[in-house]
Amino acid sequence: MFGVDPRQHIEALVLARECAQLDACGRLIGMRLTVLAGGIGGATFLRGLVQARPDAEITVIGNTADDITLFGLRVCPDLDTVMYTLGGGISAERGWGRDDEGWLVKEELAAYGVQPTWFGLGDRDVATHLVRTQMLDAGYPLSAVTEALCDRWKLPVRLIPMSDDRVETHVVISDDEGARKAVHFQEYWVRLHAEVPAHEIVVVGQDKAQPAPGVLDAIAECDVLLLPPSNPVVSVGTILGVPGILDAVRKTAAPVVGVSPIIGEGTTDSEQVPQVEAAGIAARAVPLWMTDVDTTAAIASEALDLAAAVRR
Amino acid sequence: MFGVDPRQHIEALVLARECAQLDACGRLIGMRLTVLAGGIGGATFLRGLVQARPDAEITVIGNTADDITLFGLRVCPDLDTVMYTLGGGISAERGWGRDDEGWLVKEELAAYGVQPTWFGLGDRDVATHLVRTQMLDAGYPLSAVTEALCDRWKLPVRLIPMSDDRVETHVVISDDEGARKAVHFQEYWVRLHAEVPAHEIVVVGQDKAQPAPGVLDAIAECDVLLLPPSNPVVSVGTILGVPGILDAVRKTAAPVVGVSPIIGEGTTDSEQVPQVEAAGIAARAVPLWMTDVDTTAAIASEALDLAAAVRR
Repeated sequence: MFGVDPRQHIEALVLARECAQLDACGRLIGMRLTVLAGGIGGATFLRGLVQARPDAEITVIGNTADDITLFGLRVCPDLDTVMYTLGGGISAERGWGRDDEGWLVKEELAAYGVQPTWFGLGDRDVATHLVRTQMLDAGYPLSAVTEALCDRWKLPVRLIPMSDDRVETHVVISDDEGARKAVHFQEYWVRLHAEVPAHEIVVVGQDKAQPAPGVLDAIAECDVLLLPPSNPVVSVGTILGVPGILDAVRKTAAPVVGVSPIIGEGTTDSEQVPQVEAAGIAARAVPLWMTDVDTTAAIASEALDLAAAVRR
Repeated sequence: MFGVDPRQHIEALVLARECAQLDACGRLIGMRLTVLAGGIGGATFLRGLVQARPDAEITVIGNTADDITLFGLRVCPDLDTVMYTLGGGISAERGWGRDDEGWLVKEELAAYGVQPTWFGLGDRDVATHLVRTQMLDAGYPLSAVTEALCDRWKLPVRLIPMSDDRVETHVVISDDEGARKAVHFQEYWVRLHAEVPAHEIVVVGQDKAQPAPGVLDAIAECDVLLLPPSNPVVSVGTILGVPGILDAVRKTAAPVVGVSPIIGEGTTDSEQVPQVEAAGIAARAVPLWMTDVDTTAAIASEALDLAAAVRR
C-alpha cells in the first residue's frame, strides 16, 4: 500500500492476477517485459518503465486501430507516439508529433483546399508517413515498416504493431438529421473532440485481423505482461480484440499487471482494494498521475513489484 | 531586325514558317496562343508572354517526360515550374520550387536514410505532390489533377500536360565498369550534373503515349503556336515525340514560331539569318537573354510580330 496525495486528487488502482511461475533467478533484473500500449498514456508509461528497468528486454505491442490514411499517407498515431517518445523526438508540449516541428505542408494543403483540415500533420512527421507509405506500397508489412522506422530512433524497446492487417476504429454517431453514421475514430476524437454521443464503437477489420509476427510469442514468453494506463476501449481494447491476443493473455504464465487509466477527483480507490482482492485479483492503490519521468518510473516499479508479489 | 548587344554575347535566332491563314480581325489582340513548354526556360518565356499579351488566351502544353516518382510522390518538375512561376509562388532565387520554402521533410528523410538524397523536395512543394499523388491514385488523369492544382494558383494560362500517360526520359551512360546503364533524366541532370557522356536518350513510354485531352485541339485551333527556349531534346523534343503531336504541329494553319534556346558566346546569328531564310523559313536575329520580365516580354512580342509577318 502506498500513500496517496489527496491534493492531486489521485485515484489509484493497480490490478494483477496470480501467477505460479517464478523466473529463473527470482529477481526482476534482465527480465522480459511485454507491454500493450496505446498512444500518449502508453508512451508516457513506457518512458518511466525504461528508466525504472533499463536492463529489461521490453517488447511493446502497439495499438494500430487509430491508424488513418490522410492525404494518401498512412498515419499510425499510436505507434508514432511511442516511437517519438522513446526515441527522443516527441513534442513535449503537445505529447504527440515531433519537436521543433514546421507546418508548411499543412498550410499548403489548406491553400489547395484539401480535406480534411482538422488533422494537422507536421512537416517532420510527414517524412515518417512518407517512408511508411512508400514501404507499405512496396509490399512490406507494417511490422517490417515499423522496425525500419524505429531503427533510426534507436529505441530502447522493440515495437510491434498489434497486427499487419488494417484495423480501424469507427464511432457511430447521429448526424444533423438524426440518422446514424460512422466516423473514423480520429474524426470523432480530433474534429468532434469526443463531445458527440457515441452509439457504438465498430472496429472495422478486427474480426479478420491476425496478430503481427512476434505478438503472441511476446505475450507467451514474457516474465511480466503490463497494461499501461491507456484507453480501455479504443487502445487496450482494440489490441485485445485482435483474434488470438486475449486468449494468449489468458494463457500466459506471466503475471499480468494493469495500471488503471482512470484517475478520480477528490477520493481514492484505497477502500475498493479489498473488494477487488475478494474477487481473486491482487490490487494496490498507488499514485497514478504520470506528472514526470521519475514519478512514472515509480508507478512502473510498483507494477513490477506487484507482479513479483503475486508470483511468490 | 533588331540590335544585338555584343556585351551580352547574345546569339539570337527566331524561326517561323509561312502560314496562309489570317485571323478574323487581322490583329494580334485576344488571340489564341498555344505554347509547348519545358521547365525554367518555358516558364520564364511564358511570364514575358503574359505581360506582353495580357488579353491573349494562352494554352500551355507542358513537358512531362521529366516526371519522376520520389518517396512515393509523383513529381512533375516542368508542370510545377510553369505553375509556380505564373502563379507567383516560384523561388526567384532557384528558378524552381517554392519561395519561402522549408526543408524539414528532406532533413527527416535523410535521417531515416531514405534514398535518393540528391533530389530535394521542399516542404511546401511536398504538399503539391501529395495532392497530385492522392488524386492520381484515386484515378484522376494527370490533366485533371493539373487543372485542380492550377485552380488554386489562378493561372493566367491553361496548363495541360502533353500526355496523361507516363513518359519518362532516361539517359544511357556507362557505369564504373564500363557497362551501359540507363538512369532517369533527373538523376542524370541533378545527381550527375549532366557531366557524364550520354550514349543515348530513351524516352520510356513515349511510343505508347497519347496526347492529353485538349492538346491536339490547342495546336490545331490556335492563332500562333510558340516554342519557347527550352531544351530541344528533353523538353520540346519529348513533347513533339508523343505520337500525333508533331503531326498536328505540321498540319496546323497557325504560324509556328520557335525561339532558340541556344545563346552563343561572342558572336551573333545575324549572319546566319539569310541561310535559314533560303531554306524557306522566316528568321530574325533578336536579343534572347531573358534577363527580366520586360526583356522577356519584348522577346515574346518579337516572336508574335514574326508570326504576324509570315501570315501576311
